Amino acid sequence: MQQEKNKKIYLDHSATTPVDKKVLVTMLPYFSDKFGNPSSVHSFGQEAMTGVDVAREKVAEFLDCSVSEIVFTSGATEADNLAIFGIIKALKRKNPNDKFHIITSSIEHPAVLELFKVLQEQGFEVQFLPVKANGTVDIEDFKQAIKDNTVFVSIMYVNSEVGSIQPIHEIGKWIQKINKLRLKKWQETEPKNRGDKPFAIYFHTDATQAVNFLNCSTKHLHVDLLSLSGHKIYGPKGVGALFVKSDVLIDAIQLGGHHENNRRSGTLNVSGIVGLGEAIKLLDKKTTEKNNKKIDKLRRLLIAGITKNIPNVILNTDLNQSVPSHAHFSFIGAEGEAILISLDLVGVAVSTGSACASSSLQASSVLLAMGINEEVSHSSIRFTLGKNTTETEIKKVITILQPIIKRLRQMSPK
Amino acid sequence: MQQEKNKKIYLDHSATTPVDKKVLVTMLPYFSDKFGNPSSVHSFGQEAMTGVDVAREKVAEFLDCSVSEIVFTSGATEADNLAIFGIIKALKRKNPNDKFHIITSSIEHPAVLELFKVLQEQGFEVQFLPVKANGTVDIEDFKQAIKDNTVFVSIMYVNSEVGSIQPIHEIGKWIQKINKLRLKKWQETEPKNRGDKPFAIYFHTDATQAVNFLNCSTKHLHVDLLSLSGHKIYGPKGVGALFVKSDVLIDAIQLGGHHENNRRSGTLNVSGIVGLGEAIKLLDKKTTEKNNKKIDKLRRLLIAGITKNIPNVILNTDLNQSVPSHAHFSFIGAEGEAILISLDLVGVAVSTGSACASSSLQASSVLLAMGINEEVSHSSIRFTLGKNTTETEIKKVITILQPIIKRLRQMSPK
Repeated sequence: MQQEKNKKIYLDHSATTPVDKKVLVTMLPYFSDKFGNPSSVHSFGQEAMTGVDVAREKVAEFLDCSVSEIVFTSGATEADNLAIFGIIKALKRKNPNDKFHIITSSIEHPAVLELFKVLQEQGFEVQFLPVKANGTVDIEDFKQAIKDNTVFVSIMYVNSEVGSIQPIHEIGKWIQKINKLRLKKWQETEPKNRGDKPFAIYFHTDATQAVNFLNCSTKHLHVDLLSLSGHKIYGPKGVGALFVKSDVLIDAIQLGGHHENNRRSGTLNVSGIVGLGEAIKLLDKKTTEKNNKKIDKLRRLLIAGITKNIPNVILNTDLNQSVPSHAHFSFIGAEGEAILISLDLVGVAVSTGSACASSSLQASSVLLAMGINEEVSHSSIRFTLGKNTTETEIKKVITILQPIIKRLRQMSPK
Repeated sequence: MQQEKNKKIYLDHSATTPVDKKVLVTMLPYFSDKFGNPSSVHSFGQEAMTGVDVAREKVAEFLDCSVSEIVFTSGATEADNLAIFGIIKALKRKNPNDKFHIITSSIEHPAVLELFKVLQEQGFEVQFLPVKANGTVDIEDFKQAIKDNTVFVSIMYVNSEVGSIQPIHEIGKWIQKINKLRLKKWQETEPKNRGDKPFAIYFHTDATQAVNFLNCSTKHLHVDLLSLSGHKIYGPKGVGALFVKSDVLIDAIQLGGHHENNRRSGTLNVSGIVGLGEAIKLLDKKTTEKNNKKIDKLRRLLIAGITKNIPNVILNTDLNQSVPSHAHFSFIGAEGEAILISLDLVGVAVSTGSACASSSLQASSVLLAMGINEEVSHSSIRFTLGKNTTETEIKKVITILQPIIKRLRQMSPK
């Protein structure tokens, strides 16, 4: 009991998750026993390749696609880089003189946002879509943004900071419609006036924060490219995957060995890939529904406790349009970083936003895009619950938090 | 005893190695216990970062450099891509109109060779150095190759196919001399006629196959960039490192998060990095000397047995200029792929060359560069011994091999 009381509480599951024991058990034989290089012809190599094949099947089943459409990477960041730079590289190689328009949202992960900024510097016409106050892209804004020379769209499935779910299915359907219209118009033009076949719009989504909770059927979503990560879904760090639809051409970014059907060179990270496969296997529909319900219940308990006990709190997560893990608050008059450190001192781990940028002192660009002002932004804390979070933990956090906020507000100069 | 007899024999350590049990034990806590994201501010994150810091110190100590000069990657292929494309990207960004000359050898790993071919297509002047019959670059050829506009050299430390050791220290020293001369000449020019400061030549070596056996002090080698891999040194797959000398500017290839001092974005693969650090720690000077001696003795036993028992065999590894692991043979009149498969059927794992290209049926470009003809190339087998290889295993392989070669030669149409 004493031990339970002293146990640390982890409410930063959006930054990373512990490897599930079942996942680790599945990985273990691939370190020192089935250790072959999957590129090797002999039985050691083939044994390792079998592990990779099984994992690839699990990922493909989850994404409702073919095994040949899965490219294993070192993580979601690499998957995003490969998706975006890979498709742009292939497009520019085939059409060096065309002027392209590409679309993303203003609340993407840096692994998408920074790449679009680089492409903008390179001369691409880039549209950064705004978001509504609840942190979601407006489908009408998206429809308006499409131009005749739009060739690529990248919108995340779930925002990592506030947990908002983007209308990926709707966007995907609209893109499909536009692509059909472009083709029809071209077919109806007299052959001698037609010119080249029109460009299709390719659609990428970074689904890193969605995989634990949402339907990721690539057919349902109508996406051409989808990134995911191992360590956000109780799998290991250092591994991820990119779905590349069979008819979509991407150029490799990392060269030298022609692995993964010429799409990603480098010896396969066998144990990592096996772990990713097992982590995805654990996300069957029934388990996911059960976990979603449980996590959402605890999140609502946390929100009720905080808003009841602490005045002047703003909940930035829209409960009707978010994954169940997220509860993002602004504690007006208290400094986010100070709350984080105070909670850490009593064994509670939370975040001020995305771990990827947590060393930066800039206000969150996601919150600014949602129309939250800089001062309020700086008072923000993200709680992200996981499948092993307990009611006891949530109650303890509510109790702990109240005096911390009170003290910090008293210390504040304002 | 029966079990020992049936145990498989692994003689493909150049393709990959089993994770050392000590390495695995060091990694294990970082999966489900110390699982934080090192970018997180809280104690879970800092605990993970401590693991990374310790590993970084071990790698830096081994490479005789500062911790800030180590960039962790997903493997040697990524390290090579980052070294080559990273330095070229930075050079081109700062000097878009300069015409550069770059040098590599004709026996590099595809992660170097392919990149130089891409750069050649992009308009770089590329020199692929020939090698001598023993698979080493001639230092005089290298000196001759340097031109006034040479800015980058990449030569591997040890060739993975035949095990030949390249004169990295001598090349590094020569480059240092040229750089000093260029600077001196510039300083002696009248200021008004000087122009911009002259370009330095940057020197990269892929040391993947050297780390187990050779001195990798970057100061001794006079290199600016050095790549290495975890899984070739009894560490895990999916992790590697690039040494980048403090005064060398490289542009990141994988963007989005500014990890590793803006040189490589993406959540750190903590368990992998910890494993890499421990694997490198096990390579202390004393252990390495002991292992080198033991492995070399077994290699000589293998070579003596094969050349005594089997006629018409060519040893392609130069015992005076190679790491102790490698024994590369051509069995004239027998097909390499057939030998590999026959050995695999009786539980012996070898390779026809590099695992990275083993699915290709082309003759090895390394052997061709060494002046070996295509037919002889196709009859080749690489044995690579490891630290756990035993005398019993070597003796068994000698006994097994003789009838296999005899049978295959009888089957051969020639």
